[in-house]
Amino acid sequence: MATIRLISDAEANDEVAAVYADIRATRGTDFINDFWRALANDPVRLKSLWEEVKTVMAPGALDPLTKELVYIAVSAANACPYCVHSHTASARAKGMTDAQHSELIGVIALAGKTNHLANTMQLEPDSVFRVENQKD
Amino acid sequence: MATIRLISDAEANDEVAAVYADIRATRGTDFINDFWRALANDPVRLKSLWEEVKTVMAPGALDPLTKELVYIAVSAANACPYCVHSHTASARAKGMTDAQHSELIGVIALAGKTNHLANTMQLEPDSVFRVENQKD
Amino acid sequence: MATIRLISDAEANDEVAAVYADIRATRGTDFINDFWRALANDPVRLKSLWEEVKTVMAPGALDPLTKELVYIAVSAANACPYCVHSHTASARAKGMTDAQHSELIGVIALAGKTNHLANTMQLEPDSVFRVENQKD
Amino acid sequence: MATIRLISDAEANDEVAAVYADIRATRGTDFINDFWRALANDPVRLKSLWEEVKTVMAPGALDPLTKELVYIAVSAANACPYCVHSHTASARAKGMTDAQHSELIGVIALAGKTNHLANTMQLEPDSVFRVENQKD
Amino acid sequence: MATIRLISDAEANDEVAAVYADIRATRGTDFINDFWRALANDPVRLKSLWEEVKTVMAPGALDPLTKELVYIAVSAANACPYCVHSHTASARAKGMTDAQHSELIGVIALAGKTNHLANTMQLEPDSVFRVENQKD
Amino acid sequence: MATIRLISDAEANDEVAAVYADIRATRGTDFINDFWRALANDPVRLKSLWEEVKTVMAPGALDPLTKELVYIAVSAANACPYCVHSHTASARAKGMTDAQHSELIGVIALAGKTNHLANTMQLEPDSVFRVENQKD
Repeated sequence: MATIRLISDAEANDEVAAVYADIRATRGTDFINDFWRALANDPVRLKSLWEEVKTVMAPGALDPLTKELVYIAVSAANACPYCVHSHTASARAKGMTDAQHSELIGVIALAGKTNHLANTMQLEPDSVFRVENQKD
Repeated sequence: MATIRLISDAEANDEVAAVYADIRATRGTDFINDFWRALANDPVRLKSLWEEVKTVMAPGALDPLTKELVYIAVSAANACPYCVHSHTASARAKGMTDAQHSELIGVIALAGKTNHLANTMQLEPDSVFRVENQKD
Repeated sequence: MATIRLISDAEANDEVAAVYADIRATRGTDFINDFWRALANDPVRLKSLWEEVKTVMAPGALDPLTKELVYIAVSAANACPYCVHSHTASARAKGMTDAQHSELIGVIALAGKTNHLANTMQLEPDSVFRVENQKD
Repeated sequence: MATIRLISDAEANDEVAAVYADIRATRGTDFINDFWRALANDPVRLKSLWEEVKTVMAPGALDPLTKELVYIAVSAANACPYCVHSHTASARAKGMTDAQHSELIGVIALAGKTNHLANTMQLEPDSVFRVENQKD
Repeated sequence: MATIRLISDAEANDEVAAVYADIRATRGTDFINDFWRALANDPVRLKSLWEEVKTVMAPGALDPLTKELVYIAVSAANACPYCVHSHTASARAKGMTDAQHSELIGVIALAGKTNHLANTMQLEPDSVFRVENQKD
Repeated sequence: MATIRLISDAEANDEVAAVYADIRATRGTDFINDFWRALANDPVRLKSLWEEVKTVMAPGALDPLTKELVYIAVSAANACPYCVHSHTASARAKGMTDAQHSELIGVIALAGKTNHLANTMQLEPDSVFRVENQKD
């Protein structure tokens, strides 16, 4: 149950169709998930976000799988069911093993615990954590 | 300004002193950050959480630096200033480069953006994301 | 699947029935959404919250549609599916066009992105943002 | 206390300097807030985000002040102090009156209350809220 | 650094002064914390929220201290520093012992951990948890 | 639709079976909810978390029902549907009355409202709330 319509292939204008084609080519699958079909209501945003995702998630100083793990972590903390599902699937497609998934879950849970501890105890960051001190 | 007192070395009972000593030995530094000093009001929790952190953050299917990046991601999404600061420092101590930090920031920001998109559009996870389909 | 029962018209006591009647009269529809039927387990809270909603969402220095857009934004950030759905419907009933909905989604997504950036970088508000300086 | 360095005018390379110049020209002030100085550690991200902000926040189907109010709402819900401060200042610069600010605060607070109510009672969206039914 | 002015006793109009007087009388102290002084920019909201707080936090089916513990828990999860501080102080004023505070912290931390676990694993509530089954 | 498989009794290894048996004995019911069946993918985590839950939620300075109320509050604020459902059921099993549930909902909603107020107004904690001053 979405608050916005999903754009089918038949409804796609040229701009949308071009992005759909690039998604298919990039991922090597005919499947296009609903996130993109919902965004396609605004073809300009669809295109710019797809380009942003390709750029940010590309191999770089961090490998693509590490980036997906970070993505899952943010999505779990933000309680975004769609995002947790889609990026868990992406992580698996990029080689995440069950053991890695299990450790990821462990770190996310530990961070959830200590975040709540720190927020309940209202600790101020130690001065030694200042970037000025870190960079020396 | 914390809601709980910080336990100095002089105030530490034997149980707390033992954990403080293990923190120092494990990290190779005399510095003990305030998170542990606040937890030391409850020596049992202090010890069990320190053991949990050592276990969960140890090398495994994921390397320690990847775990710290995940930790930062959760902490940023949870708006926990203490946690972002302390784990950014930990990540640097474990070798995070400026380029890696920059890409981490980019992924966290992208996830924040798409999380809000998905939550505003209230998309339901595509059925293809179901774990049953992923595991085939 | 709620954690609390929904109160049907037949089950409504006089106090609840009066609020249901006012909801119907105010909105010009016989439909009463589940939020109010759930709240009706506590007739006092039902009445006070309905009065609060009518007061806060009434035309004033901000027009009613702007208020609905703000409501959707908070609800998306808080990951409250019920609230996003009900207030997206309310916004449409108050005249939100597809183009306005699309721009709203864009602003919410951008704010989600920059919120995560600021929280990861742990920036402190610039001193020029202080209310004292703004009011001069 | 940030986790990343702020880039002064003297440290700015040509790419950063060009964005700083555009920020100054667009806003009609010499002041550049720390958010952009922190982003300037990655000149590509600085430029792309500044372009995104200019595009998304420009007048369109929603006026610029309405967009700032939505931005404040997301930032308050996400507990992002920097963002609340900077966009409250932006909203004032775009003409937000004290009366409008006061009503905005009222709507954000009401949404925070009802979001927590809906999430505690775990209501499922009424079927009438489905976009299919809204669009008829 | 607030985004809104604080109203001193000297600036208070009659409506505000009456609420300030009631806060002082109810709490048995001359001190008025900044939350109320900020709300006093809108005397109607100040009065209605103060009445709501008095009503909701009064002894009832739950005792006042239990209510403060719940308040702290919500505030920690929402990353609201002001709220954690003020309600921790309120809880202490209502008799919260160090041992109770310590156990509260433990429950909040455990809930933060399991919330993140459930949100990462995206579990759907077991059917046995449905209110229909609970009430039988 | 979970992102991880649920471990049935038939699939449980000895370690998992032992925890399942202890859950059944402790709770006096044959039913094991999906949270534990999902965690059972990692038998070590299953066992340590079950022990942690038993310890933290046991009677102490706070009674078990109060702890469940705090748990529900955190889970509602974190938008964790599974957790709200399971702990509302636990609270009922531990004697939560409808009147107590209703007051709990009221406190959570009030806290959600004032959290958003404080975060929008960006108030800094009053100095009198400092733990140093509280402990005198």
